[in-house]
Amino acid sequence: MSRKIFHSLVPVEDVLKIIEKYYPLKPLGTEEVDLLNAINRVLAEDIYAPIDHPPFDRSDVDGYAVYSKDLYGVDEIHPRVLKVIDKVEPGEMPKAIVKPGKTIEVATGAMIPKGADAVVMIEYTERIGDSVKVYKSVVPGENISTTGSDISLGDLVLQKGTIITSKEIGLLAGLGIKKVKVYRKPKIAVFSTGNEVIEPGAELIPGKIYDVNGYLLTTMLNELGASSEFLGKLPDNYDVVYEKIASSLKNYDIVITSGGTSAGLGDLIYKVFDNMGKPGVIIHGLLVKPGKPTVIAVADNKLLIGLPGFPLSCYMIAHLIVKPIILRLLGVKEIDTRTVKAKLSTRIRKPLGRSWLLPVSLIKQGEEYIAYPITMKSGSISPLSYSDGFAILDRSRDLYLEGEIVDIILFDKEYRIPSLVIIGSNDVLLYRIINEAGLAGETKIINVGSLGGWNAIKNGEADIAPTHLLDEDTLEYNTPFIKKTGLSDKAVLIRGYDRRIGIVVAKGNPKNIRNVEDFLRDDVTIVNRTKGSGTRTLLDILLKKMAKEKGIKYEEIIGKIHGYTYEVKTHTAVAKAIIHGRADAGIAIEYVARIFNLDFIPLSWEHFDFLVNKASMGKRSVKTFIEMLRSDKIKALINNTPGYRTPHDIGEIIG
Amino acid sequence: MSRKIFHSLVPVEDVLKIIEKYYPLKPLGTEEVDLLNAINRVLAEDIYAPIDHPPFDRSDVDGYAVYSKDLYGVDEIHPRVLKVIDKVEPGEMPKAIVKPGKTIEVATGAMIPKGADAVVMIEYTERIGDSVKVYKSVVPGENISTTGSDISLGDLVLQKGTIITSKEIGLLAGLGIKKVKVYRKPKIAVFSTGNEVIEPGAELIPGKIYDVNGYLLTTMLNELGASSEFLGKLPDNYDVVYEKIASSLKNYDIVITSGGTSAGLGDLIYKVFDNMGKPGVIIHGLLVKPGKPTVIAVADNKLLIGLPGFPLSCYMIAHLIVKPIILRLLGVKEIDTRTVKAKLSTRIRKPLGRSWLLPVSLIKQGEEYIAYPITMKSGSISPLSYSDGFAILDRSRDLYLEGEIVDIILFDKEYRIPSLVIIGSNDVLLYRIINEAGLAGETKIINVGSLGGWNAIKNGEADIAPTHLLDEDTLEYNTPFIKKTGLSDKAVLIRGYDRRIGIVVAKGNPKNIRNVEDFLRDDVTIVNRTKGSGTRTLLDILLKKMAKEKGIKYEEIIGKIHGYTYEVKTHTAVAKAIIHGRADAGIAIEYVARIFNLDFIPLSWEHFDFLVNKASMGKRSVKTFIEMLRSDKIKALINNTPGYRTPHDIGEIIG
Repeated sequence: MSRKIFHSLVPVEDVLKIIEKYYPLKPLGTEEVDLLNAINRVLAEDIYAPIDHPPFDRSDVDGYAVYSKDLYGVDEIHPRVLKVIDKVEPGEMPKAIVKPGKTIEVATGAMIPKGADAVVMIEYTERIGDSVKVYKSVVPGENISTTGSDISLGDLVLQKGTIITSKEIGLLAGLGIKKVKVYRKPKIAVFSTGNEVIEPGAELIPGKIYDVNGYLLTTMLNELGASSEFLGKLPDNYDVVYEKIASSLKNYDIVITSGGTSAGLGDLIYKVFDNMGKPGVIIHGLLVKPGKPTVIAVADNKLLIGLPGFPLSCYMIAHLIVKPIILRLLGVKEIDTRTVKAKLSTRIRKPLGRSWLLPVSLIKQGEEYIAYPITMKSGSISPLSYSDGFAILDRSRDLYLEGEIVDIILFDKEYRIPSLVIIGSNDVLLYRIINEAGLAGETKIINVGSLGGWNAIKNGEADIAPTHLLDEDTLEYNTPFIKKTGLSDKAVLIRGYDRRIGIVVAKGNPKNIRNVEDFLRDDVTIVNRTKGSGTRTLLDILLKKMAKEKGIKYEEIIGKIHGYTYEVKTHTAVAKAIIHGRADAGIAIEYVARIFNLDFIPLSWEHFDFLVNKASMGKRSVKTFIEMLRSDKIKALINNTPGYRTPHDIGEIIG
Repeated sequence: MSRKIFHSLVPVEDVLKIIEKYYPLKPLGTEEVDLLNAINRVLAEDIYAPIDHPPFDRSDVDGYAVYSKDLYGVDEIHPRVLKVIDKVEPGEMPKAIVKPGKTIEVATGAMIPKGADAVVMIEYTERIGDSVKVYKSVVPGENISTTGSDISLGDLVLQKGTIITSKEIGLLAGLGIKKVKVYRKPKIAVFSTGNEVIEPGAELIPGKIYDVNGYLLTTMLNELGASSEFLGKLPDNYDVVYEKIASSLKNYDIVITSGGTSAGLGDLIYKVFDNMGKPGVIIHGLLVKPGKPTVIAVADNKLLIGLPGFPLSCYMIAHLIVKPIILRLLGVKEIDTRTVKAKLSTRIRKPLGRSWLLPVSLIKQGEEYIAYPITMKSGSISPLSYSDGFAILDRSRDLYLEGEIVDIILFDKEYRIPSLVIIGSNDVLLYRIINEAGLAGETKIINVGSLGGWNAIKNGEADIAPTHLLDEDTLEYNTPFIKKTGLSDKAVLIRGYDRRIGIVVAKGNPKNIRNVEDFLRDDVTIVNRTKGSGTRTLLDILLKKMAKEKGIKYEEIIGKIHGYTYEVKTHTAVAKAIIHGRADAGIAIEYVARIFNLDFIPLSWEHFDFLVNKASMGKRSVKTFIEMLRSDKIKALINNTPGYRTPHDIGEIIG
């Protein structure tokens, strides 16, 4: 088979228009459901009130139904006595009629008896046997909800296209409506593809990965209100794939596949889609990154959508393209939902020509959202746990500035506001402390390195920033930066704990590495950490010191080190690079060396402290966190973890 | 039975604290569910990664796996030729090993063969038979996602208490996890009470109303994630109610009733709750309006909640009190969700001492919400269709200013942004036009009268304000107000249609009313419209004119008119007041007189026009609306509706 080239990539904003030429994006039919089962369905009919509400003139209060003219001129000083001839409870038909000089007692919700045109509240009366002394006049209609005053027979109460929630159900029930006509749910078959993909629960064979997209898409489509089913993996065989998709089209309205659509993986899905019926493939390739290998076909009034294989690409394209399709088939008009405006936390450069989908983690600061872009490799699934949505960066722009407002399409229906926001450096014990403090599930952690954390505190975006920044001038951790960054008014530094940091090398130290100077050896390749991390800062300080001592230029020293530009983002990744033989040495905490059974040459104890936003010091979650830090339980936990120790002033304010 | 008095009403902010003394607000247990069924459930365990992800070193690109040192110094001018010894596809185990001078072709997602430490992208190579010319050097690790670089074995990936959405399901699937432990759903029995209540679908008997709360609560609780069932209506009989609740407690964790808890309706529910077990009733009455007659009891570790009977009171108290209870039982930590900050559209006076729950309709203006308070009678159900949530007004305050920011608790998970916002006067044909324009379901209509609409345009809150305001000086409709309100820069006036307005009287005009002057007769009672409505303005202008002509003071004339203070909010309500004999005359449009078969004395043709926000003129929805106004279809519709006529310039800009 020849490889398919992507001709004329389609801009994302044109996708729905193109589809609509071949496939009407409107509801697929209607069905009648019982009210209690109508939740989250979309109304397929205008509802006109079949009755008046209230259905009769009813009393708003406990009191006496009167003829208002009987009480003209009545007040505290000039009360009038009326004869009480009957009493009406809610649900009863009044038996008597109010005539001049007479009254009937009524309870809240009771039907107003004939002859009465107002109700005087019980508070303004005094009952004496079968008479009542009234101390207040009333105007006609006072304290009466008249027939149809809330809703009149024939009023349009709910419009076609309304999403039915509990309040619409309550309203319909109150009008006596027991069944409603709703749009039928689109039936969607979801398939995965790829020889490397196996089912969760199965044994993991080398070279294979667990399927993500089948589960991700099926549940996402159901969340949207469709009726979708995961039909498993399509094999790498044209005839079998053709047969499976053709037969599923008999029972489903839409078929969605993921993976197998990039030029590199062959064009089997494309060919099957194109041969399934008329008109065949209508879109092949989107002018967006990621998401280029998206394919959309229409075959005899059924819709076929092939999504990218990388999970986050697949998920973002599903939100961008599939969600509006499903919502229209569901009869939902509003497609602006689940979008918020957010300020970019950092500037973004991108090439011109293609739109970018940029996954972000959101922080809410007052009423404003801040979007932290998530950088990741294509096959990553971890962003699924901490991304909140994505920005669409324009194809005609190559630069977005820090602080610029962008639209964020949310993955969830609601953005959940965490009670504790931690932005900065990361540490394994941090999660343990949060768990012990009972703050799991309400804490948002964004790893941007120590420096990023200081910035987040400066901008008021974080409650707490974990930090282990070494100051070049004083060789002290963290405290000097409070002055240097001018944050004395905005933040306090809470003492955390110490982590031993050093050089991690393979078991047995085969290259005999003794210190950072050995990084300059020609037979040594290192793995470095990304800029902004405390560990990277430490290495650069050590190298600058060395440059000064040796009288060599710092840049020259850096140029000599093999692997200086080989940057990874975590201590664990440093250890993994050494285990896999891609590097001989790297700087990391002792803890990961112990965990992965590697050798370790200590360099120093670094202070892992917590910069706390002063404005957050009163928050329950922050107080709980600091109290937990000071607890004996956490002190013991720290001391019992290899490579960690508790300082005497843990949990105290040190700057 | 003696009537129960509400002792020591509980402030709303104390309710959960009091309950927690007797009933732990934490999950009721756990259960294991299959991943595809875990949607919207709450994770009951921390999830630590059982594998590395990716589970092997994998290629991020299509290209050639190389030993990076082989390509030192290689660039466009100094390419190097490597021998291609094998090819690895995704899902395959590499068979060969990369040795110096050799390379293995790899596809995206394929496992990196041993000996290779980087991948050079296919774009920088030229294949020649079984060799490849490489034009670019690579650093160790380039284009490789290393084992565990995304997620390391043992990493905490999801925390206990996380609400599982599709993205968490995708993440768990990718880690090979097939089943997860989630918190059990609380099982809730819902009962209604009240002799006046009958089931929707049943025949409406005089004096009865259809049950709202049973349907409203059951579906609301299910929306929140509980498992609730509506068990019907409780009768007005202590023994039967006791028996029904006692037996439901065997199968349910919580019993919720509504109605029957106010002092006026007897204290049966209170007594049953109090006698059901230890400790009995713990809260009887809340310091909030509405919602005072709320009762909460604990009986042998089961929770019993009695909610108010009026639908909107019941719904608001359920959101305020029951929702946080359910969320805690579900294991959800964040209870800040579904709250937005909004500016009050108007000032609010309230008495000190009790909190107020104020239902509102929300408008989003840029990133800001505006809350329009909804005024209503206690038994109303229509606000269920147009309220978005409610504000809690503080018990220690008696005044809120216009523009003040208040917290709004949303009824829905999401606030749906309508594409068309219409605020102002109301008309039956308006709905028809919106329906014909296909804008139903995406339009929000708030009825605040003509004047309120002008204000909403001034504040930028509405796209369109329907208006029929008569100017006292020129006796022209609408146009003079553009200058008078200083809105020339902000809004344009679009010509709408004409409605005939006049005096509505009973069939046959028994009181022989001929003009507005007859309103002063002692044997005539009128029904008036609320201030700010165009119709009220018309009457007041006519009365002022009359005062001038007769040389009487305007206030004196008003004082003479019986029913001048009897205000209703719609034309229909005017007609209904006359039908029910509460008034002899009122001013309304001819249309309602025809619909209700009443007599009509014409006064004038009023202009029902549309003030349009200039900033909204480019909106699709606004353009569609204006186009529809100009269509022949709508012109015909208007002319065929009794009491309406089409002006020649309908849909044109007239100011």
